Amino acid sequence: MSHRVADALGYKDMDNISAASSRHNSENLPYVHKVGVPPKQNLLKEIAGTLKETFFADDPLRQFKDQPRSRKLVLVFQALFPIFEWGRNYSLSKFKGDLIAGLTIASLCIPQDIGYAKLANLDPQYGLYSSFVPPLIYAFMGSSRDIAIGPVAVVSLLLGTLLQNEIDPSENPVDYLRLAFTATFFAGITQFTLGFFRLGFLIDFLSHAAIVGFMAGAAITIALQQLKGLLGIKKFTKKTDIVSVMRSVWSAAHHGWNWETILIGMSFLAFLLVAKYIGKKKKKLFWVPAIAPLISVVLSTFFVYITRADKHGVQIVKHIRRGINPSSLNEIFFSGEYLAKGFRIGVLAGMIALTEAVAIGRTFASMKDYQLDGNKEMVALGTMNVVGSMTSCYLATGSFSRSAVNYMAGCNTAVSNIVMSSVVLLTLELITPLFKYTPNAILASIIISAVISLVDIEAMTLIWKVDKFDFVASMGAFFGVVFSSVEIGLLIAVSISFAKILLQVTRPRTAVLGKIPRTTVYRNILQYPAATKVPGILIVRVDSAIYFSNSNYVKERILRWLADEEEQLKESSRPGVQYLIVEMSPVTDIDTSGIHAMEELFRSLEKRDVKLVLANPGPAVVDKLHASKFHEMIGEDRIFLTVEDAIVTCAPKMDLEP
Amino acid sequence: MSHRVADALGYKDMDNISAASSRHNSENLPYVHKVGVPPKQNLLKEIAGTLKETFFADDPLRQFKDQPRSRKLVLVFQALFPIFEWGRNYSLSKFKGDLIAGLTIASLCIPQDIGYAKLANLDPQYGLYSSFVPPLIYAFMGSSRDIAIGPVAVVSLLLGTLLQNEIDPSENPVDYLRLAFTATFFAGITQFTLGFFRLGFLIDFLSHAAIVGFMAGAAITIALQQLKGLLGIKKFTKKTDIVSVMRSVWSAAHHGWNWETILIGMSFLAFLLVAKYIGKKKKKLFWVPAIAPLISVVLSTFFVYITRADKHGVQIVKHIRRGINPSSLNEIFFSGEYLAKGFRIGVLAGMIALTEAVAIGRTFASMKDYQLDGNKEMVALGTMNVVGSMTSCYLATGSFSRSAVNYMAGCNTAVSNIVMSSVVLLTLELITPLFKYTPNAILASIIISAVISLVDIEAMTLIWKVDKFDFVASMGAFFGVVFSSVEIGLLIAVSISFAKILLQVTRPRTAVLGKIPRTTVYRNILQYPAATKVPGILIVRVDSAIYFSNSNYVKERILRWLADEEEQLKESSRPGVQYLIVEMSPVTDIDTSGIHAMEELFRSLEKRDVKLVLANPGPAVVDKLHASKFHEMIGEDRIFLTVEDAIVTCAPKMDLEP
Repeated sequence: MSHRVADALGYKDMDNISAASSRHNSENLPYVHKVGVPPKQNLLKEIAGTLKETFFADDPLRQFKDQPRSRKLVLVFQALFPIFEWGRNYSLSKFKGDLIAGLTIASLCIPQDIGYAKLANLDPQYGLYSSFVPPLIYAFMGSSRDIAIGPVAVVSLLLGTLLQNEIDPSENPVDYLRLAFTATFFAGITQFTLGFFRLGFLIDFLSHAAIVGFMAGAAITIALQQLKGLLGIKKFTKKTDIVSVMRSVWSAAHHGWNWETILIGMSFLAFLLVAKYIGKKKKKLFWVPAIAPLISVVLSTFFVYITRADKHGVQIVKHIRRGINPSSLNEIFFSGEYLAKGFRIGVLAGMIALTEAVAIGRTFASMKDYQLDGNKEMVALGTMNVVGSMTSCYLATGSFSRSAVNYMAGCNTAVSNIVMSSVVLLTLELITPLFKYTPNAILASIIISAVISLVDIEAMTLIWKVDKFDFVASMGAFFGVVFSSVEIGLLIAVSISFAKILLQVTRPRTAVLGKIPRTTVYRNILQYPAATKVPGILIVRVDSAIYFSNSNYVKERILRWLADEEEQLKESSRPGVQYLIVEMSPVTDIDTSGIHAMEELFRSLEKRDVKLVLANPGPAVVDKLHASKFHEMIGEDRIFLTVEDAIVTCAPKMDLEP
Repeated sequence: MSHRVADALGYKDMDNISAASSRHNSENLPYVHKVGVPPKQNLLKEIAGTLKETFFADDPLRQFKDQPRSRKLVLVFQALFPIFEWGRNYSLSKFKGDLIAGLTIASLCIPQDIGYAKLANLDPQYGLYSSFVPPLIYAFMGSSRDIAIGPVAVVSLLLGTLLQNEIDPSENPVDYLRLAFTATFFAGITQFTLGFFRLGFLIDFLSHAAIVGFMAGAAITIALQQLKGLLGIKKFTKKTDIVSVMRSVWSAAHHGWNWETILIGMSFLAFLLVAKYIGKKKKKLFWVPAIAPLISVVLSTFFVYITRADKHGVQIVKHIRRGINPSSLNEIFFSGEYLAKGFRIGVLAGMIALTEAVAIGRTFASMKDYQLDGNKEMVALGTMNVVGSMTSCYLATGSFSRSAVNYMAGCNTAVSNIVMSSVVLLTLELITPLFKYTPNAILASIIISAVISLVDIEAMTLIWKVDKFDFVASMGAFFGVVFSSVEIGLLIAVSISFAKILLQVTRPRTAVLGKIPRTTVYRNILQYPAATKVPGILIVRVDSAIYFSNSNYVKERILRWLADEEEQLKESSRPGVQYLIVEMSPVTDIDTSGIHAMEELFRSLEKRDVKLVLANPGPAVVDKLHASKFHEMIGEDRIFLTVEDAIVTCAPKMDLEP
């Protein structure tokens, strides 16, 4: 009947799967709406569309559209080197901000660099090298305006741990250093490749929650490692787990602790923490914690120099090479057994470094509301690390603490990185010998005060409140890092994240719907207790695409809803279910396994004298129902635009307003 | 205003996120419906609920509810050994069907077993052993009524290939056999473990399409391997890829082919294929292809015996051990280097065997409409293989071809497996010596005619029509198996399946919605060209849960939709977008990364003077929006039950009927 209505109304151009009267319009006339079949797409177009959505989701080529060739070349060049785009509008007022920000982060980065190099088991100058070349390159190629580039604590620790597993740095420092450059090289290649092939979305698989836990765990681990410098212990474990470290600390308690070191370290740590607290309380005084480390270094170095405390067992930096980065191209292992090892370490550390840099870039981009092309960022970071590996730098990335200071000091562009880089250059050329008497305890205090803010209790509390599963991932990563090692923590974080994805795709939600009184809207009866079931009809909504990974579950779950309903009806001796309406709005796609499951569902229902009805299948689903002839199997008039339409047609005599 | 309406109507018990007038009811009065907040669940209950949905989705403990203790024990026993449940209603009439079916599949399995054992590089009796013990055990523990248990072609080939990679069967047959038992043992353990811990859903990750491709590829590979027997070639490659095999065949063409063998093999292959064709054309004559192999064996053996063709180069079975299965418990490697190898092979082969058995079980269960508990099936199959490995059997599973014959011959219960098993027992005890003169060429013909139906062109065509991505997975598996090896094919199939899942969770679909004329329904404007956009309002639907893996993409995609829209509006110089409505019906869940992305979206929109509005968030989403205070951020009155409600409230002065 409804078909005839459709014809009468002249809807011949639309598909004839279904036709049902829609009562809910103000004139109260029976209009007919059919489930739309999207225009058939060319196969190649379809594939191109999918590829585009996957790899070019951000439509990076938009600006190239309809441009003459010469203009395109300029655009390509500008895309590779954004400095030539924003540089044209650069002004003195902008430079003022960048200069102040650059000087501030330089004063913060110099002591941090020396400390972080030690975390990676490298000599202090390598930290400084890594704050010279990479920021310069990033300034030309990067698109973030706020990120501060250089060595960071977590990546230094990770790299140090991974390298140490292969070569003992105290026994074979030359090969250790060479392996560090090799790993840095491959980290850069990895970053570049991910960006170039637009695979940047892969890093999204490390969830925010997992990163929070991992960072907090790494911060604790790094702080524990600093007990060596802070307490002046000479013999210290090489393991990073809390049990080994605490055992090492206690066993040294009787003869290995040095009270002068403890005195210096603790007093400056207190000073740094107070400075940090001041900066946190008054945003205007952000420069206090930013220059406190440099002040500590200067003061303590002077103090050790005049008291010659190094003769009383206070360990000092001793030697730090003067001059800028030497070439290290020939140091990289391009063959031999260390090639594979360097590659493996580089890929892992490169991914982590990337995750940190992209997270920072995105955070500040969203605060200042500019777009950041993640893949372009990766190309910039990758290039910077490849060049870095050839100029005696180890893995550099975006630093959370320094980027925040950069932002607060009023940076406008990546020029602040150039300023910082220049200050580091001067430091390397002129004043490195002065660091000779800097006590290690000060570096330990600086690292502790820097990493402590990576333990983000607030974020953890929020994660606990919002999503328990995320909290488990977060804590898994945290305890994995603290009680075992950074790698294990990372492995746990990634595994839990993947488990969550698998859970999502194998066990999608389903819900029984009821009619919300005095509307034509059907909603989950668990969420809306006022919603009422329609007698003789069971409405089930499937909340996911039906794919091979969940098709069996979906089929069986729907049958179980039906069994539950039938049982309830039997108990209250009401008539059984005659129609099962599957609300398909959220079912965005179906594959061959899904079609099979629907066929099996249909057959099972047929044997129980229950009719299967579909409501609102999406374009991809309609396409595939047609291709597989499933619409003929269940009947063309059993597919409706809305649940209401289905109910009106299936049960025309039922009183729908209870 | 709407809040006051809500209060006036006494909706105080519901949450006060949103209130909006719903005009679409017949009386045309403004009613208020709010977005329901589901009752707060206890944390433990929530976790228990998730665990139950994941591992006990089929509610297997339903029948244990409210039963006395003694009854529960009986039920547990019956659950473990279903034969004691259905056995009580067993009747003579049922036995008649089972007897005929059992005899038919026995006649089919005996020649197949001998051939399949050769595929696994084992002596023929091991095939027969594996058709004796495992079916018996399955009959007691399994819940499928139609499956026929025994060695199958694909698993035999896979096992043979994997074992051969470790030990050369011609050089070290003793260790090879021991490794086969070890692998079988661990395959059983794997199957049992998956079932016992209710991890059966893991096998769903091998999609239907991938299985179709894999099976077809394996069938071609198996058929190619039979060229050795069919052409009487003595020197044959050990590789299974088509290139190596064809090269081996051609290089033997001049002196290695044996015309007597070819004559026997080809004529019986023709006979078998004709029998198969007859069985396909007339369903009633299903027994013709079922007994044709046995007839071929008898005829050809007799023929070779009287002509002594074996003296003219026709290869024969030669020796086949008489008597039932000897114990092989002491043969299994429980230590040494082969333990790990056996374990690895067992896990892989066990999973594939499981996939095949469960697929068969489900197919026939849905044809006869009975429920099959996949996890219980796995426990049964696992037990049967563990016991099998101790009684000289190699990996057995459900056979497609024999199960189909079993079904068509009218089997009623697993008793047909017992009948088959008994016939195999008699064969082993009495007539194995008679197989001495059976020519290998006949076994090759039988295998070819058996595996040929695994190449399911029809299914492939359907896959091509329905889902191109599935087709790629299918072909990947197919060509992987044919041109490389079974393992590579399997790896390709699993990888493509996983890639599809990753694509689904990283790149969910989004759609711009429009109002379907004269309704209150909003649908994808690409699917429904008649749907019209509402001026000043952009409605975007997100078709997936928003998780860490896609949160950035979703945010950026929504902003891109907005940019596209703004561009279009600017071109036609119409006013810009004021409201962005995100239709959240399909968004079943959100995690902390998702909340972050929504916050970033909100901030970006704020800077562009566009207001963010949410429509119909589900229970889990509402919960988390509350926990994270996001609902306070965007404003409590910006969350609506339906898109229509949102539009009516946001743009009350707009004329909604164009």
